[in-house]
Amino acid sequence: MQSNYINSNKINQIGIIADQNVLLLFPFYFDELKKNFPCHIFTLLPGENNKCIDEATYLWQNLLEHNFDKDSLIVNFGGGLITDLGGFVASTFKRGIPFINVPTTLLGMIDAAVGGKNGINLNHAKNMVGTFCLPQEVIIDTQFLKTLPPYELLNGFGELIKYALIGNANLWQEIQKLQSIHCQNIKKEWIDNCIHFKNEIVTIDMEDRGPRHILNFGHTIGHALESCFMNSEPTLSHGHGVALGMVSESFLSYQHKLLSEEEYLTIRRFILQFYSFPKNKKQISEENFKQEFLKYCHLDKKNTHNNINITMLEGIGKASPNHNISEDECWQSLSSIL
Amino acid sequence: MQSNYINSNKINQIGIIADQNVLLLFPFYFDELKKNFPCHIFTLLPGENNKCIDEATYLWQNLLEHNFDKDSLIVNFGGGLITDLGGFVASTFKRGIPFINVPTTLLGMIDAAVGGKNGINLNHAKNMVGTFCLPQEVIIDTQFLKTLPPYELLNGFGELIKYALIGNANLWQEIQKLQSIHCQNIKKEWIDNCIHFKNEIVTIDMEDRGPRHILNFGHTIGHALESCFMNSEPTLSHGHGVALGMVSESFLSYQHKLLSEEEYLTIRRFILQFYSFPKNKKQISEENFKQEFLKYCHLDKKNTHNNINITMLEGIGKASPNHNISEDECWQSLSSIL
Repeated sequence: MQSNYINSNKINQIGIIADQNVLLLFPFYFDELKKNFPCHIFTLLPGENNKCIDEATYLWQNLLEHNFDKDSLIVNFGGGLITDLGGFVASTFKRGIPFINVPTTLLGMIDAAVGGKNGINLNHAKNMVGTFCLPQEVIIDTQFLKTLPPYELLNGFGELIKYALIGNANLWQEIQKLQSIHCQNIKKEWIDNCIHFKNEIVTIDMEDRGPRHILNFGHTIGHALESCFMNSEPTLSHGHGVALGMVSESFLSYQHKLLSEEEYLTIRRFILQFYSFPKNKKQISEENFKQEFLKYCHLDKKNTHNNINITMLEGIGKASPNHNISEDECWQSLSSIL
Repeated sequence: MQSNYINSNKINQIGIIADQNVLLLFPFYFDELKKNFPCHIFTLLPGENNKCIDEATYLWQNLLEHNFDKDSLIVNFGGGLITDLGGFVASTFKRGIPFINVPTTLLGMIDAAVGGKNGINLNHAKNMVGTFCLPQEVIIDTQFLKTLPPYELLNGFGELIKYALIGNANLWQEIQKLQSIHCQNIKKEWIDNCIHFKNEIVTIDMEDRGPRHILNFGHTIGHALESCFMNSEPTLSHGHGVALGMVSESFLSYQHKLLSEEEYLTIRRFILQFYSFPKNKKQISEENFKQEFLKYCHLDKKNTHNNINITMLEGIGKASPNHNISEDECWQSLSSIL
């Protein structure tokens, strides 16, 4: 692992917060680091349920026990769960010690590990507790992509579609050619484009006060869907939720006359060929599902004054943030893909 | 309660995080607020043990349940425990919602509620988890001082002595005239001076990277003493710990030839007339106490590279931050007041 931060700072010890499964796949990844620094490895099990206050407390207690301080470094090694949780833990331990992210999933590389949003879930509500704090460095190593199951690649690809739709019409044209999602199909250049775009937005609006809202396209409905399926088996991945959320929110953009019918149908067709609505929702009645879904829509962090807030599209490649919609519209937009 | 922030912002609901005992003393304090806004009151019991992750989680869950968002407001009403904990909870809920502090103790007014350091304790280590985040407003209402027991006034007065010693030789001269500490003796002007001084320092160094370190005078040893007595009955208040810490750290300043013997003896005499070393430490052997004390000294957040870091005095009214001292020196300085 090559890190500019590690090479140019005096570091007294390193704490590696690692996804246990990834560490088993790359057991020698930190050998060089271990030679040069006292290292402690804290492993976590994958699963959104572990992105919780109990795991954060477990990590804080370990950092305390091993005397971590501002001259120590945390390395978050894994997917979005690890970088979100590890970033939150590092940014609050002793009111903030340095951390770097080594994302091992496509989603982590283009989204979760970049941009400084850290957090944990509270009950079933996603990222309800967290901080804004940038990592000292994000290390992109595409060798990890080869180990990802198709489901996990689709998880990241959902966010990649989002970057195309909100800000990169050329990327949208390129991905239209894909017939299936494999790691060989994902170009390093696409990843770099997404990171570059996100970094530009974050630089002007770190704390999500305005311009950054465009990154939320697909997320109001996407997050609510993720929350609805958090206890299902299988759960719904973030990217899968966002993909379905983008279909719904494109529908709303079309209904609000911001997007043409043709553009909406193109988006819908492209996304639904890779992502379908989970069948296991049918275990509960539609009315119960509706109520749960709308409850989670209201919990969304972007909401103000009890409205449901979404980002719409004004065409492919251009986002329009902060539209308030009613519960009825929200449910109708989801019904279109049920 | 008069608040500029409340008068000039659109607020959808207010969450009052209140010390239960203070609320019993001032049951009508929020009546006006309750007429104008939906208000939820969350009461906490006093006691440093409640400044913990469980109470933070209880508050986060309540905020989630009541749909608090960025247009809501948290009012922290109580002493340092409440403003530290409430500030941490507000600054991390949905990655930060607005909060104001209404400190009800002398310590809160001149120190805890001002300056943007929020946090909770982890095990027995103070403020190990927290954030830097300024309240939107701090409301100073000296009527609360009349209700404080002598012990609590002394708690705040410890920090007031600190402000005099690190930056205000005139204030030092004024407080020399005090024979005892009563609320009638504490001038509003002194409180304003302390807040003004702290705000000036915080403006140039919010995140404690350099200039702010002078505020830590008395705190390395003071915090360690507080931690040592956290399970004792009575515990040692923050200001009491800092007062004893200032005697020890003045001794070190004298040993390091920064402070004259006369100045050291004046400081020692003045402080020890109001603050003495707790008798109940003698329940454990001196050797055990020493080990525990040094362990906590090493946990101090200011430390880097395993050194113990303290702020010294270069004379009365002038602080000199970032001196590294050995364990032996640290223990010796405390022994001088045992």
